[in-house]
Amino acid sequence: MSLIPKSHPRAKSLFIREKLVSGFNRGLVAKEGLLAHGRGEAFDYLLGEKTRKTAKRAITASAAQILLADLPVISVNGNIAALCPKEIVNLAKVSGSKIEVNLFYANEKRKQNIIRTLKKNGAKEVLGTNSRSSTTLPGLDSARRIVDKNGIFAADVVIVPLEDGDRTIALRKNGKKVITFDLNPLSRTSQTANITIIDNVTRAMELLIIECKKLQKKNRKMLEKIVKDFDNKKNLADNIIEIRNNLTGRLSIA
Amino acid sequence: MSLIPKSHPRAKSLFIREKLVSGFNRGLVAKEGLLAHGRGEAFDYLLGEKTRKTAKRAITASAAQILLADLPVISVNGNIAALCPKEIVNLAKVSGSKIEVNLFYANEKRKQNIIRTLKKNGAKEVLGTNSRSSTTLPGLDSARRIVDKNGIFAADVVIVPLEDGDRTIALRKNGKKVITFDLNPLSRTSQTANITIIDNVTRAMELLIIECKKLQKKNRKMLEKIVKDFDNKKNLADNIIEIRNNLTGRLSIA
Repeated sequence: MSLIPKSHPRAKSLFIREKLVSGFNRGLVAKEGLLAHGRGEAFDYLLGEKTRKTAKRAITASAAQILLADLPVISVNGNIAALCPKEIVNLAKVSGSKIEVNLFYANEKRKQNIIRTLKKNGAKEVLGTNSRSSTTLPGLDSARRIVDKNGIFAADVVIVPLEDGDRTIALRKNGKKVITFDLNPLSRTSQTANITIIDNVTRAMELLIIECKKLQKKNRKMLEKIVKDFDNKKNLADNIIEIRNNLTGRLSIA
Repeated sequence: MSLIPKSHPRAKSLFIREKLVSGFNRGLVAKEGLLAHGRGEAFDYLLGEKTRKTAKRAITASAAQILLADLPVISVNGNIAALCPKEIVNLAKVSGSKIEVNLFYANEKRKQNIIRTLKKNGAKEVLGTNSRSSTTLPGLDSARRIVDKNGIFAADVVIVPLEDGDRTIALRKNGKKVITFDLNPLSRTSQTANITIIDNVTRAMELLIIECKKLQKKNRKMLEKIVKDFDNKKNLADNIIEIRNNLTGRLSIA
């Protein structure tokens, strides 16, 4: 039974917390992942907990970029597996992406739990545990440097929801195009990725799937134009202005 | 051994996370407390991870308010016990406050672990577990409604670090003066408390102890003037401006 009284005005946010805690109890989420989610919660709060215009723009550009890719790979960690396993699998199907598990706080058992969850949600293949096909991504100290030769290592586009900055930089240095979901527009991941979707994954992942389906009908030239016209730095600056305006609005209420 | 590479630019913040995780492993911190800390991290990030002018002002007003109190009580939860148990005990000693454990996610074992930690750090008496002296704070649904007759129930000033909004409102309705530490200037706790210290407790608690020692030499009239001159609503509005200016500064770098 939930200990959260329904009368609590932040009950919705607290229920999502419980979802993460449930993922933790099922061995998907690291303790540090609970903390990281809390950080995201705060930034979402500053956005007004809704998908902003800047996020919609980034989602369209991401869909085009993924559809243009030769080998797109979705990198999955514990938090994303706890929050939207079904959406990850759907996105992979719709866009022809591979799925690879890659953890900051490495742990073989947790990896297996994540893979089981993804398979239960319809994933056919999940990379990231075969030591015979594993290799090292140069320029990275954390456990995340271990990647699959046929997955992230070979990918031209990598989708990294809820990422840490180090790896985004390493992926870029290794010539990958990086699409990320990050609620902090100032983070190194946000600033380094090719396309940054500043939105809660529980809202944005579904929108990305819809956008991929929509853009599948467009020709290559059209998709290339969408990607070319998207300016990530400008979009992040616009997002910071959205946050500032939201703060100003609240200030006048305060 | 820490899995965080020293080269990680957010290593400091990640090490504090590990401190919380250690508190969790020792049975002090609730899983939801890890998430709540993450929220604080994000707001601290927006402050530039330093004690701002508005926090210093609130700390001075808090010290005066505590020294003026007949029965000040410090309410302790798992996170604060994990982050600064020694400072809690020192603040109680310097200011003549009582200490009471009060948890949102109630759990007798966790309560006992928190009390043990506080006693190890020099606390003589910790209220909040004696069922014979417990009573109910009206107007509150969560487990936090259970308080000690000789502690929070009887207090005129309650210091509530890392609080939830419901209880702050209930405490105010019951005629208490509430001093809180909260990194979110927009939260209901921040907006409802008499004095809100917008700062990381790991920095601000120590400063509050120093301020209490300093103001002990002042007479009652002087302390009353400090409290009277402090305007919490204005201070919160100034803090939001500090955050907005910090964002603007970052924007020009982005």
